[in-house]
Amino acid sequence: MERIEHRAAFGGWQDVYQHRSAVLGCEMKVAVYLPPQAATQTLPVLYWLSGLTCTEQNFITKAGAQRYAAEHGVILVAPDTSPRGDDVADAEGYDLGKGAGFYLNATEQPWAAHYRMYDYIVDELPALVEAHLPASGARSISGHSMGGHGALVIALKSPGRYRSVSAFSPIVAPTRVPWGQKAFTAYLGEDRSAWAAWDASELVATAEEKLPLLVDQGGGDEFLDTQLQPQWLQAACTAAGHPLQLRLQPGYDHSYYFISTFIGDHIAHHAKALHA
Amino acid sequence: MERIEHRAAFGGWQDVYQHRSAVLGCEMKVAVYLPPQAATQTLPVLYWLSGLTCTEQNFITKAGAQRYAAEHGVILVAPDTSPRGDDVADAEGYDLGKGAGFYLNATEQPWAAHYRMYDYIVDELPALVEAHLPASGARSISGHSMGGHGALVIALKSPGRYRSVSAFSPIVAPTRVPWGQKAFTAYLGEDRSAWAAWDASELVATAEEKLPLLVDQGGGDEFLDTQLQPQWLQAACTAAGHPLQLRLQPGYDHSYYFISTFIGDHIAHHAKALHA
Repeated sequence: MERIEHRAAFGGWQDVYQHRSAVLGCEMKVAVYLPPQAATQTLPVLYWLSGLTCTEQNFITKAGAQRYAAEHGVILVAPDTSPRGDDVADAEGYDLGKGAGFYLNATEQPWAAHYRMYDYIVDELPALVEAHLPASGARSISGHSMGGHGALVIALKSPGRYRSVSAFSPIVAPTRVPWGQKAFTAYLGEDRSAWAAWDASELVATAEEKLPLLVDQGGGDEFLDTQLQPQWLQAACTAAGHPLQLRLQPGYDHSYYFISTFIGDHIAHHAKALHA
Repeated sequence: MERIEHRAAFGGWQDVYQHRSAVLGCEMKVAVYLPPQAATQTLPVLYWLSGLTCTEQNFITKAGAQRYAAEHGVILVAPDTSPRGDDVADAEGYDLGKGAGFYLNATEQPWAAHYRMYDYIVDELPALVEAHLPASGARSISGHSMGGHGALVIALKSPGRYRSVSAFSPIVAPTRVPWGQKAFTAYLGEDRSAWAAWDASELVATAEEKLPLLVDQGGGDEFLDTQLQPQWLQAACTAAGHPLQLRLQPGYDHSYYFISTFIGDHIAHHAKALHA
């Protein structure tokens, strides 16, 4: 974990680390906000998963989350959205390959060698964070769009690992929308039976742990009807008796202006679970 | 004033307008945040002047100011930092030409035709804002780095026009530092007698109005000793009996992480004057 950025923010430090990922087989960057309390004690961690095209920079420069993390004494960890580097497979288009890892473990070529974001986010990254930073071991997870899909799927697949989960405008049913179908065909293959294990709306039916889901969705989101369609998650949660708080926010779009408006609510939600 | 962006944020709207500037002789973009209160009443305006290399986008995407503007019922207006377009003169390097207008009226060729940011900010833009938006006519001004220089100079040169002024890491004495000397030589000519009229540390000596100056400066700012040196403003204010609150913030650098940390204080400061 080599620190490559270090900037004072809200009494703490907005850092970026670079490290070798054994799981992904490449160098990765990860942004870490250490609130002021981290100078003297270990703190819980909120993992943030960003959306398509993003790097570790988008959330830390645009969401305004540091203020709330400092208020609540929570470390923020925002990783990159895919493996990186010249020997990592890529594709044309913003929605496949670099910047579009979809937080799963790919099984198909040429992706399987490096695209193992699920293992990276669930195992390797927390192990690094808890070994090298003042992190207590209590974890929550959130994200936006593709990262909202990632947060929901990861929490649902990893019972006991996260204290709370939330998402902004998540891809709730990737097996049923163009973004997800394109990515899953490439990463997981044509056989759709392998897809359900990476679809939040499918996973709630069999989730071992009924971790409540908090989801904010902008009513003016340009991707609402084509890629997001949160009603599928709502129907699946109703059928499974899985607790879901789905908040439709009229007028808000898919941008970081939406995230910045409600990230304070989400961090308060996670802090309550993390400090309980 | 054609609205080209319109995004919900903190109960209000983060908009961007495009308009023809007669003063600058080109099309300009300007960002406007309308807080929720603007739906039903006219409100005072805080003008924000950005620094070198910036456009109308940097402040609105990175400062997190909308939350405080919504809290205090203040409109934010963030213009671009220079004239733009193919027929506007430019230079190599980030610190002259486009993105580096220095908020003055150029007298030298090839700059004089378009580089009249002082007149644009002080007269043309407020007239447009007050004609087309729910703006009450009460104005304050702030900015960062080159824009901090702009805010201080504009307030000092325009008695009665602004209720309050503040700056983040401003170039307080452009006639004495490399950024300012390069720009002033190009825009104003070799004759240094014309320069003092655009230097805040010179202007305080003869300012008609003793508008208190609020300045935040990061102690870890990479430009502190070479380009900023706020002690020159402090000495000039002491000599002139001009009120100055200069806050050195240990550890903070020149970035928007610094601005985002303290913008809430600045907006509260301006709101108090604007709503008085």
